[in-house]
Amino acid sequence: MNISALLTSSGINTAVCVVLFSLYSILRKQPSLVSVYFGQKLSQVRSKRNDPLWFQRFIPSASWIVKSWEASEEELLAIGGLDAVVFLRAVVFSIRVFSVASVICLFLVLPLNYFGKEMDHKHIRNEQLSVFTIENVKEGSRWLWAHCLALYVISSCACILLYFEYKSVTKMRLAYIAASRSQINHFTVLVRAIPWSREESYSVRVAKFFTDYYSSSYLSHQMIYKSGAMQKLMTDAEKIYNVLKSNTVEQHYGSRLLRCGFCGGTSTSFKILSPEPENVRTTSLHDGPDLGKKECGAALVFFRTRYAALVASEALQQPNPMTWVTDLAPEPSDIYWSNLYVPYRIFWIRKIAILVAFILFVTFFLIPVVFTQSLVHLDKLEKVFPFIKGITERKFMKQLITGYLPSVILMIFLSIVPPIMMVFSTLEGSISRSGRKRSSCIKVLYFIIWNVFFANILTEAAIDHYQVSIMKLGDPKTIPNQLAKAVPSTATFFVTYVLTSGWASLSFELIQPFPLLCNSFYRFILRNKDDTSYGSYTFPYHTEVPRVLLFGLLGFTCSVLAPLILPFLLVYFFLAYLVYRNQILDVYVTRYQSGGLYWPIIHNTTIFSLVLTQIISLGVFGIKHSPIASSFTIPLIICTLLFNEYCRQRFHPIFKKTPSKTIIDMDREDEHSGRMEEIHHQLLSAYCQIKSESKSSGKSLELNCPETEVNDKETGDISRPEDPEAPVNTSAQPP
Amino acid sequence: MNISALLTSSGINTAVCVVLFSLYSILRKQPSLVSVYFGQKLSQVRSKRNDPLWFQRFIPSASWIVKSWEASEEELLAIGGLDAVVFLRAVVFSIRVFSVASVICLFLVLPLNYFGKEMDHKHIRNEQLSVFTIENVKEGSRWLWAHCLALYVISSCACILLYFEYKSVTKMRLAYIAASRSQINHFTVLVRAIPWSREESYSVRVAKFFTDYYSSSYLSHQMIYKSGAMQKLMTDAEKIYNVLKSNTVEQHYGSRLLRCGFCGGTSTSFKILSPEPENVRTTSLHDGPDLGKKECGAALVFFRTRYAALVASEALQQPNPMTWVTDLAPEPSDIYWSNLYVPYRIFWIRKIAILVAFILFVTFFLIPVVFTQSLVHLDKLEKVFPFIKGITERKFMKQLITGYLPSVILMIFLSIVPPIMMVFSTLEGSISRSGRKRSSCIKVLYFIIWNVFFANILTEAAIDHYQVSIMKLGDPKTIPNQLAKAVPSTATFFVTYVLTSGWASLSFELIQPFPLLCNSFYRFILRNKDDTSYGSYTFPYHTEVPRVLLFGLLGFTCSVLAPLILPFLLVYFFLAYLVYRNQILDVYVTRYQSGGLYWPIIHNTTIFSLVLTQIISLGVFGIKHSPIASSFTIPLIICTLLFNEYCRQRFHPIFKKTPSKTIIDMDREDEHSGRMEEIHHQLLSAYCQIKSESKSSGKSLELNCPETEVNDKETGDISRPEDPEAPVNTSAQPP
Repeated sequence: MNISALLTSSGINTAVCVVLFSLYSILRKQPSLVSVYFGQKLSQVRSKRNDPLWFQRFIPSASWIVKSWEASEEELLAIGGLDAVVFLRAVVFSIRVFSVASVICLFLVLPLNYFGKEMDHKHIRNEQLSVFTIENVKEGSRWLWAHCLALYVISSCACILLYFEYKSVTKMRLAYIAASRSQINHFTVLVRAIPWSREESYSVRVAKFFTDYYSSSYLSHQMIYKSGAMQKLMTDAEKIYNVLKSNTVEQHYGSRLLRCGFCGGTSTSFKILSPEPENVRTTSLHDGPDLGKKECGAALVFFRTRYAALVASEALQQPNPMTWVTDLAPEPSDIYWSNLYVPYRIFWIRKIAILVAFILFVTFFLIPVVFTQSLVHLDKLEKVFPFIKGITERKFMKQLITGYLPSVILMIFLSIVPPIMMVFSTLEGSISRSGRKRSSCIKVLYFIIWNVFFANILTEAAIDHYQVSIMKLGDPKTIPNQLAKAVPSTATFFVTYVLTSGWASLSFELIQPFPLLCNSFYRFILRNKDDTSYGSYTFPYHTEVPRVLLFGLLGFTCSVLAPLILPFLLVYFFLAYLVYRNQILDVYVTRYQSGGLYWPIIHNTTIFSLVLTQIISLGVFGIKHSPIASSFTIPLIICTLLFNEYCRQRFHPIFKKTPSKTIIDMDREDEHSGRMEEIHHQLLSAYCQIKSESKSSGKSLELNCPETEVNDKETGDISRPEDPEAPVNTSAQPP
Repeated sequence: MNISALLTSSGINTAVCVVLFSLYSILRKQPSLVSVYFGQKLSQVRSKRNDPLWFQRFIPSASWIVKSWEASEEELLAIGGLDAVVFLRAVVFSIRVFSVASVICLFLVLPLNYFGKEMDHKHIRNEQLSVFTIENVKEGSRWLWAHCLALYVISSCACILLYFEYKSVTKMRLAYIAASRSQINHFTVLVRAIPWSREESYSVRVAKFFTDYYSSSYLSHQMIYKSGAMQKLMTDAEKIYNVLKSNTVEQHYGSRLLRCGFCGGTSTSFKILSPEPENVRTTSLHDGPDLGKKECGAALVFFRTRYAALVASEALQQPNPMTWVTDLAPEPSDIYWSNLYVPYRIFWIRKIAILVAFILFVTFFLIPVVFTQSLVHLDKLEKVFPFIKGITERKFMKQLITGYLPSVILMIFLSIVPPIMMVFSTLEGSISRSGRKRSSCIKVLYFIIWNVFFANILTEAAIDHYQVSIMKLGDPKTIPNQLAKAVPSTATFFVTYVLTSGWASLSFELIQPFPLLCNSFYRFILRNKDDTSYGSYTFPYHTEVPRVLLFGLLGFTCSVLAPLILPFLLVYFFLAYLVYRNQILDVYVTRYQSGGLYWPIIHNTTIFSLVLTQIISLGVFGIKHSPIASSFTIPLIICTLLFNEYCRQRFHPIFKKTPSKTIIDMDREDEHSGRMEEIHHQLLSAYCQIKSESKSSGKSLELNCPETEVNDKETGDISRPEDPEAPVNTSAQPP
C-alpha cells in the first residue's frame, strides 16, 4: 500500500464522515425523530414533550458540537453517571498521551525512519508506507537511541497520567458511594442458596436465620419468586384490581393492597389490611402454602444500617460455603431478576462451560480474520493463487480491495460478537445488569485484542514467511521476534482499520441506524403516531470501552515503530470525545451504573499495551542490532510493572470492597438527621419483582409498584439485538 | 541400569535403614539423650523428668514401632495439633492410593509391559529395568486398554479418597476453630500501617480510631514497639525488678507491676499501681514521650467478642487501602514479632523482589541437578566424554556411581534449600510463624517439583536426544511428547531416588543427627550435665510435606508407565507412617499450628500430579498409536479438573475465612456461661512482646510474662540451621 492508496482511503472515509455528520445535524432537528436522538432528554423532562417550540427551533448545524464541547464534567456526571465520566476520562487520557506521542514521533522518529537507509526516494505520493516505519532504519544504526527515547517519553507520560487519573477516579468513586444517600441497595443483602427443608418454607428459614444471627440489625426480607409463580401472582393481581375497581374501591387502596402482597415485608400471601369487601375473600388468593413452593432459594434481606448490610454481605455465613451465599444487592433498577431464580449451585459449572465456549469461539473466529488480512496482501496472495489476478488488474478495484474492503468485512463479522458475549455473561449468572455488562465488556476486550491485534499480526507473519511452517508460530521464544518483524508491516492494515472501523463507527454511532430504521418502521409501516412508543437505550459500554482500548493499544504499539498512524488516531479520539459526549448528553439514558468499575479494566489494558509495546520494541532493537537501546528498554519494562503493582495496591481495593469508614459515617449522618426511619420505610417497597418482569406494559400493572423514586427508574422490556436490555418505556403512566 | 544394580542399591539402603533403626532403638533408651528423642514428652511432663525409672526401663527394641502404630488419632491431635493429623492423613492417603495402584499395576500392567514385545528375555537378574516399563509395549498394541483402565482405576480411587479426606479435614478444622475457646487471638486484630501524625502518638490514634468506629466492641489495645525500644524497656524492667527485690517487696507484686508496664492495656509508660518505694521514682522510668517515638505503626487491638474482631479484620477500614490494614492476629505463641516492626508499605515491593529472587534461585539450581542426572547415564556420557571411561571400568564403581551417588549428591544440594526458602518467607512479611512455615512449604514444593521432577526429565530428554537441539525443549507443543518419551526412561532414576532420598531420609529423621551432635557437644566438650539446656524443635512441615508430595507425584506419574517403582514407594510410605507418628508423639513440640491449612496444598498438589499423569499417559498412548486409549483419557482429565473445581467451591472457603455462624455460636456460649469476663481479663496480658524477643534466657525476664497458659507455650530462641525457629527452653522457670 502506498501513500496514494492511503489518501484514497482516508478521502473516502472523511467524505463518509462529513456526509453522515451533516445528515445527523439535519435528522436531529426532525420532531418525528425525537425519540431516536433525544432519549435522554425525553426520560428527563417528560412534561415538556408536548411543547411544540422545544424541538422545532432551528439550531445551526454545528451547534451539537459546541454544546457537546461546552458540557462540564458535573453535568455529565449528573446525566450519564460515573461510568460515563470514567469512559470519557479514558478518551481524554488517550488524547493527551497520543498528543505527546505525536509530537515526539512525527518530528523526531518519522524523519529518522524516512532517511534511515541510503536510498532513492520516489515521489512522496508513490512512496510505500513501509518507508515510514522502523523497517526502513538500517541495522546497527546509531539513531535508534531516538526510538528508545521516544519510548521512554511515551511510557513515562502514560504512567504519570494513569496515576493521576486512577487517583481522581478513586476519589470520584468514594464520592459516588458517599453521595448516594438514598440508595437502598446499601441496606440490602442478596442471599442465595438458602438450603431447602421439608418442614419450613424458604421465607421462614430466612427470617429465622437472620433474626438469630443478625438480631440487632435485621429489619425485614423479601422472597424472590420463580418466574412462573410471578406470572401467576401478576394475573391474580390484575383480577383483584379489576374486582376492586368494579366495586368502586378507591384506586389508592387497591394499590396499597397489592404492594403489601408483592413488594413489602415477609408476607408470602395476600394480607388484606383493612375491612375488605366480601367478594375479595371469595377469590382464591389465600394460597400461601402453594406460593411457598414457588419461592426460590433466594431473598433480599434488609438491614437497619448500611454497615450491618456490608458486614453481612462480606462474611462467610456457614460452614458449608455453598449455602447462604450473601452479596450486597444491586440497585433496584440494576438487579437482574432472571438469574436469581437459577439455583446457585449450578453456577460454578456454568461458569466453566462458558469459559470453554468462550475459548472455542475466540479460536474459531480466526477464520474470517485470516481471510480479511489476506485481502490486504493481494500481491502475495496472487503468487499463491494466480487466478485472482484477473479481478485485481484494475487499479481502482485493487485500491478498494486493499484499502477498504478488509476492514469493512471485519467490522461486519465483529458486530455479531457483543450480543454473543452478552449472552455468555447472562448465562454466567451476574446478579446485576451493570455486572453483566462489565463482564461482557471484559470478554469483548479479550476477544478484540486477540482477534484484531494478535491474529492480524500472526497471519501477517505467516503470509510473509509462507515458506516457514505456520506451526512454528506457537513457539514462545520466537514470539517476540515474530512480533517485532510483523508489527511494523501490519501497521498499514491498522492505519486503514483506524480510518474505517474507527471513524465510520463514530458516524454510525451518531446516526443510530438501527433505532432510525425502527422508528421509520413504526411511523410509516405501522402508522403509529405516538413518538414515545419506541424506547431508548443505555450506553453500550461493552462495545465502546473495548473499541477505545483497542485503538489505544494500536496507538501504543505502532507509535514508535510506525508513527504514521498517530495523526489518524488523534482525529479519531477527538471525534470520539465530541460524539460520545453528545450521545451521553442526548441519547442514552442512565438506568444503572457500576460506579466507575470500568476504570480498573481501562487501567490494566493500558498497562498491558505499554508493556507489549516495550517488549515489541525490545525485539525490534534486537533485530536491528542495537544493544544499547535494548538494554535501556529492560528497566523500562520493570518500572512499568512495578508502577502497575503499586496502583493495584493503592487504588484497586476500593473497587472491590467498600471502606467501612465511609459507610459508618453515612449511617451516622442519617441517624443524626433522623432520615433513617424514612429510609427504612422506603426499603420495604423498593424492590419490585413483578414490574421488571412484566413483558406486557399494561397500565394496570403499574399500580403494583410503590410511589417511591424507583418508579421512574424501572421500565418495560423491549430489546434491540446488540443490547438485550430493557429500554425506557415512556408511555406507561397510570392515568 | 539392570535388576542386579537395583538390587544392590536396595540392599545397601535396606542395610542402612536396618542399622539406623536399630541404632535409634538403642539410643532412645540412653538417659543422656532424653532431650534429643523425647522433646515432646519433656515439654509435656516436666514434673516427671527426675524420676529415675521413667527412662531407664528397658523396652524391647521394636516397642517404638508398636507404640507409634497403636497411637490413636485423638492422641495425635492432642499432642501434635491439627497440622500433624493433616500431614499423617496425607501419608495414609498415599498408602491407600498406592496399595490400589500396586495391585492393579503389578498384576495387570507389569506382565503386559514385560511381554509387550516378542523378544528373548535374558535371565531376570540381568534384565534392564526399561523392559518393565511401557517402552517395551509395541506400537499399536491392543493391550494398551489395560493401561488406560489402570489409569481410570487409580484416578477415580484418588478422587474419591481426596473428597472424603477434604470433607473430614474441613470438619476437623471447624472443630478446631470451635474447640479453641480460650484462644485469645480470636478476640484480637492486628492493625498495621497506622498513619503517622506529628500531633498524636500512634497509641492515641489507635484508641481514637477504634473508639470512634468500633465503640461498642472495642476493648483495649497494645502497641508494638521497635526492637531497640523493647531492649531498653527490658533492661529497665530488670533494673526495677532488682530494685523492688532489694526493697523486699514481694515477688508477686513485682511481677504484676511489670506486666502492667509491658503487656497490658494502652499504657505507654510504667504506671505504678500501688504505693511504691521512693527510690523507684528516682529511676528514670517515666519516659512516656520518648517511648511514643519508639512505637511502631502497628498495634494489637482487643475486642469484646470474637465476631467483632472477625468483622474488623475482614473489613477495608479506610478509603486509602494502604493505611489501617487489619488482620486477625495470630496466637501469642505464633506471632512473628520481627516482621511487625517493618513498615507495612514496603512489603509489596519486598514480595516482588522475593518472587524474582525465588525464580532466579530455582533456575540456577538446575546446574547441580543436571550434573546429578548425567551420572545415571554413564554409558551415554562416556560417548560424549571418553576420558571418564577409565574410572567406570570397574563393575562395582559403575554400580555405585549409577545407583547411589546421584541421589546422594542431589540430597546434599537439596538440604540447603529449606533454610533459604525460610529466609525468603521471613522477608516476605508473614505475621505468624505458622504462616511463614506454610509459605516456605509452598516454595520448597514448587522448587522440588521443578528441580527434581521436571529438571530430571528434561535433562534425560536432552541427553537421550543429544543430537536434537536442547533449545527445542521449551516448545510447548512438543512438551507432552517429550514428557511421554522421557518419563518411562527416567523412572530408573526415580526408583533409586525413592530408595536413597526416601528411605534414608526417614532413617536420618529418626536418628536426628544434628541434635545428637549438639547434645554430644554440650555433654562431652562443654561438660554441661543439665540435659534440659538443649531445646527441642517444632515439626519441619516445610521440608516433610513437600517430600511426601514429591513421592506422591513420582508414584502417580510412574504407576502406569513404570510400575516397578510402586513396591519401593509403598515401603517408603509405610515407614513414613511409623516414623512420623513416632516423631510427632515423642520428639517435636507443638508450639503453634496453622489449623489444617496444609491440606489445600496437599489436595492441589495431588490433583496436579493426577492431571500430569493423565497428560503424560495421553502422550504415551499417542506415541504408541492407540487412538482408543487416547480418546478415553481426555474425559478423565476433564472430570478430574471438574472435581477439583467442585472441591475448591465446596471446601476451600473454610480455609480462607472463618464462618461467622461458628464464631457467633462460640461468643454466645461464652456469654451464657459467664466466661467472657475472664477471657477479657486474660486478653490484656496475653501478648507479651518482650519475652519472645529476649535472646538471653535470664530467669529474671520470665517474670515479665503473666501467669496465663501462654507461659508454657512461649520460649527462648536457639535456632538450628534448617529450622531457624525458637525451640522450647525447658529450664527457664521462676524460682
